[in-house]
Amino acid sequence: MKAVAYIEPMKVEVQDVEYPGLELKDGPGVNPANVGRKTPHGVILKLVATNICGSDQHMVRGRTTAPPGLILGHEITGEVVEVGRDVEFIKEGDLVSAPFNIACGRCRMCKEGHTGVCLNVNPDRPGSAYGYVDMGGWQGGQAEYVMVPYADWNLLKFPDRDQAMEKILDLTMLSDIFPTGYHGCVTAGVTTGSTVYVAGAGPVGLAAAASAQLLGAAAVIVGDMNAERLQHARDAIGAETVDLTEEGSLPDKIEQIVGEPVVDAAVDAVGFEARGHGRDAGEAPATVLNSIMEVTRAAGKLGIPGLYVTGDPGAADEAAKEGSLSIRIGLGWAKSHSFTTGQCPVMRYHRQLMNAILRDKVQIAKAVNASVISLDDAPQGYAQFDSGVAKKFVIDPHGMIAA
Amino acid sequence: MKAVAYIEPMKVEVQDVEYPGLELKDGPGVNPANVGRKTPHGVILKLVATNICGSDQHMVRGRTTAPPGLILGHEITGEVVEVGRDVEFIKEGDLVSAPFNIACGRCRMCKEGHTGVCLNVNPDRPGSAYGYVDMGGWQGGQAEYVMVPYADWNLLKFPDRDQAMEKILDLTMLSDIFPTGYHGCVTAGVTTGSTVYVAGAGPVGLAAAASAQLLGAAAVIVGDMNAERLQHARDAIGAETVDLTEEGSLPDKIEQIVGEPVVDAAVDAVGFEARGHGRDAGEAPATVLNSIMEVTRAAGKLGIPGLYVTGDPGAADEAAKEGSLSIRIGLGWAKSHSFTTGQCPVMRYHRQLMNAILRDKVQIAKAVNASVISLDDAPQGYAQFDSGVAKKFVIDPHGMIAA
Amino acid sequence: MKAVAYIEPMKVEVQDVEYPGLELKDGPGVNPANVGRKTPHGVILKLVATNICGSDQHMVRGRTTAPPGLILGHEITGEVVEVGRDVEFIKEGDLVSAPFNIACGRCRMCKEGHTGVCLNVNPDRPGSAYGYVDMGGWQGGQAEYVMVPYADWNLLKFPDRDQAMEKILDLTMLSDIFPTGYHGCVTAGVTTGSTVYVAGAGPVGLAAAASAQLLGAAAVIVGDMNAERLQHARDAIGAETVDLTEEGSLPDKIEQIVGEPVVDAAVDAVGFEARGHGRDAGEAPATVLNSIMEVTRAAGKLGIPGLYVTGDPGAADEAAKEGSLSIRIGLGWAKSHSFTTGQCPVMRYHRQLMNAILRDKVQIAKAVNASVISLDDAPQGYAQFDSGVAKKFVIDPHGMIAA
Amino acid sequence: MKAVAYIEPMKVEVQDVEYPGLELKDGPGVNPANVGRKTPHGVILKLVATNICGSDQHMVRGRTTAPPGLILGHEITGEVVEVGRDVEFIKEGDLVSAPFNIACGRCRMCKEGHTGVCLNVNPDRPGSAYGYVDMGGWQGGQAEYVMVPYADWNLLKFPDRDQAMEKILDLTMLSDIFPTGYHGCVTAGVTTGSTVYVAGAGPVGLAAAASAQLLGAAAVIVGDMNAERLQHARDAIGAETVDLTEEGSLPDKIEQIVGEPVVDAAVDAVGFEARGHGRDAGEAPATVLNSIMEVTRAAGKLGIPGLYVTGDPGAADEAAKEGSLSIRIGLGWAKSHSFTTGQCPVMRYHRQLMNAILRDKVQIAKAVNASVISLDDAPQGYAQFDSGVAKKFVIDPHGMIAA
Repeated sequence: MKAVAYIEPMKVEVQDVEYPGLELKDGPGVNPANVGRKTPHGVILKLVATNICGSDQHMVRGRTTAPPGLILGHEITGEVVEVGRDVEFIKEGDLVSAPFNIACGRCRMCKEGHTGVCLNVNPDRPGSAYGYVDMGGWQGGQAEYVMVPYADWNLLKFPDRDQAMEKILDLTMLSDIFPTGYHGCVTAGVTTGSTVYVAGAGPVGLAAAASAQLLGAAAVIVGDMNAERLQHARDAIGAETVDLTEEGSLPDKIEQIVGEPVVDAAVDAVGFEARGHGRDAGEAPATVLNSIMEVTRAAGKLGIPGLYVTGDPGAADEAAKEGSLSIRIGLGWAKSHSFTTGQCPVMRYHRQLMNAILRDKVQIAKAVNASVISLDDAPQGYAQFDSGVAKKFVIDPHGMIAA
Repeated sequence: MKAVAYIEPMKVEVQDVEYPGLELKDGPGVNPANVGRKTPHGVILKLVATNICGSDQHMVRGRTTAPPGLILGHEITGEVVEVGRDVEFIKEGDLVSAPFNIACGRCRMCKEGHTGVCLNVNPDRPGSAYGYVDMGGWQGGQAEYVMVPYADWNLLKFPDRDQAMEKILDLTMLSDIFPTGYHGCVTAGVTTGSTVYVAGAGPVGLAAAASAQLLGAAAVIVGDMNAERLQHARDAIGAETVDLTEEGSLPDKIEQIVGEPVVDAAVDAVGFEARGHGRDAGEAPATVLNSIMEVTRAAGKLGIPGLYVTGDPGAADEAAKEGSLSIRIGLGWAKSHSFTTGQCPVMRYHRQLMNAILRDKVQIAKAVNASVISLDDAPQGYAQFDSGVAKKFVIDPHGMIAA
Repeated sequence: MKAVAYIEPMKVEVQDVEYPGLELKDGPGVNPANVGRKTPHGVILKLVATNICGSDQHMVRGRTTAPPGLILGHEITGEVVEVGRDVEFIKEGDLVSAPFNIACGRCRMCKEGHTGVCLNVNPDRPGSAYGYVDMGGWQGGQAEYVMVPYADWNLLKFPDRDQAMEKILDLTMLSDIFPTGYHGCVTAGVTTGSTVYVAGAGPVGLAAAASAQLLGAAAVIVGDMNAERLQHARDAIGAETVDLTEEGSLPDKIEQIVGEPVVDAAVDAVGFEARGHGRDAGEAPATVLNSIMEVTRAAGKLGIPGLYVTGDPGAADEAAKEGSLSIRIGLGWAKSHSFTTGQCPVMRYHRQLMNAILRDKVQIAKAVNASVISLDDAPQGYAQFDSGVAKKFVIDPHGMIAA
Repeated sequence: MKAVAYIEPMKVEVQDVEYPGLELKDGPGVNPANVGRKTPHGVILKLVATNICGSDQHMVRGRTTAPPGLILGHEITGEVVEVGRDVEFIKEGDLVSAPFNIACGRCRMCKEGHTGVCLNVNPDRPGSAYGYVDMGGWQGGQAEYVMVPYADWNLLKFPDRDQAMEKILDLTMLSDIFPTGYHGCVTAGVTTGSTVYVAGAGPVGLAAAASAQLLGAAAVIVGDMNAERLQHARDAIGAETVDLTEEGSLPDKIEQIVGEPVVDAAVDAVGFEARGHGRDAGEAPATVLNSIMEVTRAAGKLGIPGLYVTGDPGAADEAAKEGSLSIRIGLGWAKSHSFTTGQCPVMRYHRQLMNAILRDKVQIAKAVNASVISLDDAPQGYAQFDSGVAKKFVIDPHGMIAA
C-alpha cells in the first residue's frame, strides 16, 4: 500500500509500504520495546480521510529527531476492514474517527480521562500518537490503511454511514484539530459571553476560534501575521482579527475591539515555533506565552494547546534546545493566572463535537478551510501548507470523498 | 500608637505613628489616587495578633521598591473597637480575622470569588494587601491598631470570644499563611490519597504540608536546604523530608519514599528568591518551578503560592529583574501539567479552616511553630526569621496572648 | 407614584402608592422584623422595564398567602435617580439590571455565590425577592420607581446607555428569566452537543431552550400542551417540539427526534402547578419531575428551576399542601441522576449573558416574545398571560421603551 | 467449589457449585441475553475476602425478586489464578480489588467515569453488579472463586502482596462500602471544616462517617435508632451521635452539637427500608430523605448512596411498590438543595482510598468493625447482621486472612 514518509528536512514522499497487521512491526522510529507487540484488541482501518497537521510540520521542517522513512499522519478517519479477535463492540464496516492520542483504556491515566498521557503505549514516556517521532512507533495514517490498537476504547463510531459521508470533511476534524482547539478554549475558561484572544490563525487557531463561537463567546479575536489566514478567520468564522505585523501594541488593538485592553480568556495556538511580533521579527519562542499573559485579565486562564517540546535541535539558543524559555512568570503570578498545557485528550470531547457537527451546530470544515487532495499529492500539500496558505489539507487516499 | 516601619535593607524599627481613622491618609507608599479615600465601610481593629510573613522579608531584604517609613504587616487578627457607619453586621467587640487581601466586595472579581485581584482597592492594578509596596498604601497591621475597609465583606468573625482566645495562635494563621498553604494544595489537586511534594519548609511550606495532611494526602514530602526546618516538618507535621543539600537527584529521593520518582501533586512554597539545589548553590529563581515539573506525574497540577514578582531590582540578570525566568515549559507541556499562580484568595477558605481549628482537626500553630513576641521585639523577630529559624513569629501588641 | 397591586385571586390593579425611600416601610406583606430597616446602601431606580413573571401568577391565582395590596414585580431594569450615602460605585444616571434575588453581599451565602439564599434580607428564611409573598416585604418593581438595597453588590451596570436602550427588550430579561432558564440548563449539564428536553414552553421554558441553543446543544426539544407556545418555540428558537396532548409516550416522541428514547439533560421549567400529560389531564404536581427522570439518560442531570413550594393552599391533597409530592425516586436512583433545585442565583450569570446580548450572540427578547405594555395595562397583561398566550409582557412605566 | 446461595426469605445456604470459567453460563437470575457470553477479557479470582453487604440483605429479606439459587456477593478481593487471553496488564498472582460495579471500559458511560451505569454488561438497563438480582446474572463472589470480566479495566492491583495481606481487612472495604460512603460525602460536598450529618449507622453509614473524618470535616454526626451501632460510631470513628429513638427533634439535637440546627452536608446511608424516627416507628421510606432536607442548610448538597429501588414487592403501599415516595420537594427547592443519587462508581475512588489505607491515613476496618468468618459460617453472618449487630462480616473462604 502507499503511505507518506518523512525523508529529510522539507522533503516527504509517497512510498510503497507493507499492509499493516495486528502487530507492531519494526521500522523507522519504532521503539525497540514496542517491536513485536501484539494487538488483538486492534482493527485495521481503510482510510477515508487523513489530514496534514501543523505538528507534522515540526518534523518535516527538521525541528525534531524524526528518522527518515517515518510514516506520517495522526489525523485518522476510516472504515473498519479487519477486526482483532478481542474487539467486542466495533464491527467491520463501521465508519470511525480515531483520536490522535493512542490510549490503552486500562491504565490509571485512561481511567481518569487523561488519554493524552496513557502509560502503556509509549515505552519512553506517557502519551503517544500515530506517525510521530518519540511516540513509540505506531505507524502513521497518511496511508491507505492503518492499524488502530485498543479499538473498542479509542474509536468513535459515526451513527449513520451515509450521513457521515455527507459531512465527512467536518467529521475528519474530530481526530485532532477540532477537539484541540476546543480544549484550548475550555481550559482557558471560555464560556457564554467571554471575550477571547486566540494567538495564531493556523488550523488549530481557526478551530479554537470556531470553538469559542460555539461556546457562546461574545467576542473572538484572532491574532496572526498572515493576512490571508486572518481574512479567512473573518470570513468563515466571523472572528475579529489583529494583524501583528501592523504598528501598535496588542493591548491597544484589543481595546479597540472590546473596549478594554484585556480579554477574559486566551489560547496559545502557536507553540514553540513562535516569532516575535512585527513585520520582520525572527523566531522568539516565548512571545506568544508572554503576550497572552499581557492581554488576559486578572484571574484569567490560559489554554496552551500549541506544542512546546522538550528538545528542539533547531532552536536559536541552548536553553531553547532543551525546551527552556524565558517566560514572564512574574506578570502571570501578579494576575493570578492559571495555565493548562499538553496534548488535548481527544476522547474527552469528540463525541459531543460529533453531535454538534451532525446536527449542524458548527461548520468546522469551512472554519479551517478543508481542501481535499489525493494521497499522491500529499508532498505538494505539505509544501503549500508550509507556505502559509489558509487551508487545511485533507488527504483522500481512496477517492471516497471525491466520489 | 506604635507600629513596625521598614527603614532600609535589613532594618525595621518600631515607630510612633498616628492612630488610624476611617480614611486613607497620605504616608510612605500610599498611592496618590488613594489619599483621602473615605472608608465608612471600615472598622478599627485593636490588634490581638499580627504575624511576620516571608513576603515581608522580600521588602526588608531590599528586593523591592518599598519606601522608608512604610508600616509593615498584613497578617491581622483583632478586636473591633470602632465601626464605620456603613458597617451592618460586624459589631464592636467582635474578635475577627482579616484576610491579607483587601477586597471591596462590590466588583466583578470579588463577586466571582477572586478577592486576591479586587479591582477597586489598588489604583495600580488588581489586588491589594495591607502594609505592602505597590499595593495602594493601606497601612500595615504590625501595630497597635489598624483600619480594615469593607469590614462586612472582609472580616471573619470568630463565633465565641473565649474559645477564640484559647486557640488564638492557630486562628492568627487564618489571615494568610494557612489559607495560602491550603490554596497551594487545593490548586495542585491534593486530595485523599495523594502523594505530594512541597518545595520549601518555611512557614508557607509547613502550612502547605499541614494542609496536605488535613486534605488526606497519603504521603507528604517537604524539601528544603534548612535542616532545622526539615526536622520541624517531621516532628510537628509528620511529613517526610528531602534535604536538598545532600547528594542525589530529587526524583531519586522521592522514589525512595513513595516507590516511584514522581508525586501526584506539587506546591511551590518558595517563589522567586529560590536558590539552586546543592550545598553552595546561589540564587536560581526558576529552580523550584523546574524541579516540581520534573517530579510531578503526567496530568498533574502545580500549585504556585510562592511569590513571583514583576520587578526585582536585586535580581541576578536583566530578565529576572522584570520577572522573566528561564522555565522548562517544554517539559511541563509534555506532561500535560496545569499551573495555578497568584495570591491566595483567603476568603475562599478561611471560614472552613477556622471550623477545622475550632474543632481540633488541625494544629496549625504547632505546624508552623508559632512563637509569640512583643511589638517592641519585632525587629529581633525579623532578624531571627531571616536567619532561617524554624519559627513563625506572632506579634502580641497588647499582651493579650501572653495574658 | 403608580404601582401594580395584588388585590384578590385573579385580580390585580394599578394603585397610587408612596414614592420609595431608602428605608423599608411597613405595608402589605412586610415582615415586622424588616419594618424601619435603613438602606443607605440602596438606590432608587426609575423603572425602564419591568416584566410580568410566571411566578407572579402563582400569587395572582391565589395559590399563596399573598396579602391584598402587595405591590408586585421582581423583574427590574431601571435608571438610577437617587443614590444612598454608602453606595460607592453605582452612580446617578446609570442604567442597570437588578437580579430578582435580593442579596446583602456580606453573608456567607453571598460570599459563596449563593445569592438566591442570602441570609440577611429575609427574616423568615434564606432568600428573598422584590414584590413577593413571604420574602421579607421588599416592595415590587411593577411601578414607576423602586428601591434596590445593597446597590453596589446587586446591580449590573450596562456599559453604554444608548446601546442598552437599543437592546432594552433583551436586557430586561437579565433580571430573572434568562438567567433562570440558563441556570436550568447549566445545572442539567447542557453543553456543546447535548440533547436536551425542556419541560414547559412558558417564558422560562423558552428562555431555557434559547439558553440550550446558546450553550451549543445539538438538539433542543420543548414539550408542552399549548400549541401556540410550541409553535413559537419552533419559529423563534429553532427548537423541536413535543405536543403532550397528542397520543404516544414521551420517550417515543423523543426517540423520533433524536433516535433514542432519552436525552442527555432535562430542565423542569414548569414546577408545582404541573398538569398530567394528555388532553384533559388535571393538576398532577409531580408529573414533570417524574417524566424528566424517565427521559433522561443514566448519569444525567436534572435542572429544576421550576418553582416547588413549601405551602400550597390550593393543592389537591394534604401532602401537596405542604409541598410533598409522590416522586419516583427509585427510578432516578437506578439511573444515578442528580437534581438541582432552587432559585437561580442571577448574579452568577447576568454579566456574561449581558455580554452575549450586547454582541448579538442571542436574541432572548425574540425567543420569549417580549411584548411591551404600559403600566396601566398591567392588569390586562396578567389576564392575557394567564390565558396562555405565547408572550412575555414587558411593562414600560415611563414610556421610555416606546420612545 | 462452595458458594453462598439465596434460597428464600431469611434463608441463605452454602452450596456446591461449578467452578467458574471465562464464559457467563446459565443459572438462577442470569439474563438470557447474557447466557453464553464469552469473557476472554476476564480473570478467575481466588477469593481472599468477600463481605456481606447491606444491599444483600434487601434480597435476603425477600424485598426483591431474586430467584432461589442466586449466588450472592459483590464485595470481592482476591488473587488472580487464571487470566483470559485479552488481559494484558493484570497477571496471575496479582492481589486485586474488584469494584462491585461491573463495567466494560469501552462504552460512553465508562469513558466518562460513570462505571456504575455501564451500558454493556446488563441487558436490562445501565449498571450491573456481581451476585445481584436484575443485574445481568454475573455470579456472586461469596464463593471460593469468581470470574471478573474486563479485568484490565475493572481490577485495582495492590502494589505489594505482603503489605496488602497485612491490611487485608481494610483493603477488602475498597470493593464497595468505603468508596460508597466516601462518594456519599463527596457528592454532599463534604470538605475541610464541614459539619456533616450521616443518616444511618450501618456499615455504609459508618464508612461515610469515617470518610467525612478523612475529608477533614469539623463535625461528623451519625443518627440511628440502634444504640450499639451509635456506640461504635463514637468509639471507633470519633463521631458524635444522635439516637433517633429519644425525645426531641433532629434539628434540636443537631443544634446541641454544632450550635445551629443545620449542617453543611448530609448523607443518606439508609435508603428505601427507612423507618420513621421514634421508638416504635414503622417503615416510612421517605423519612430519611425528608429529614436530611430539614437539617441541611440552604445551598447544601445531599449525597444519597442509600439504595432506592424501582420495584419493592414488600412495600407498604402501591406507590412505594414502584419506587414512588412522598418527598417534601418544596422544602428542598426553597433551600436550593442539590441531590445526587445512584450506585457509587467505585473506580473513581478506589485507588486513592487504597493509598490512604496503605499509608495509615484511615482505619476503615476498625470504623466498620470488620469481623472475619468462614464461608461455612456465612448463613450465621447474615442472620447476625440482620439482627443489627455493629459488625461488618468479612468472609474468608480459604482461611487466608486467618492465617
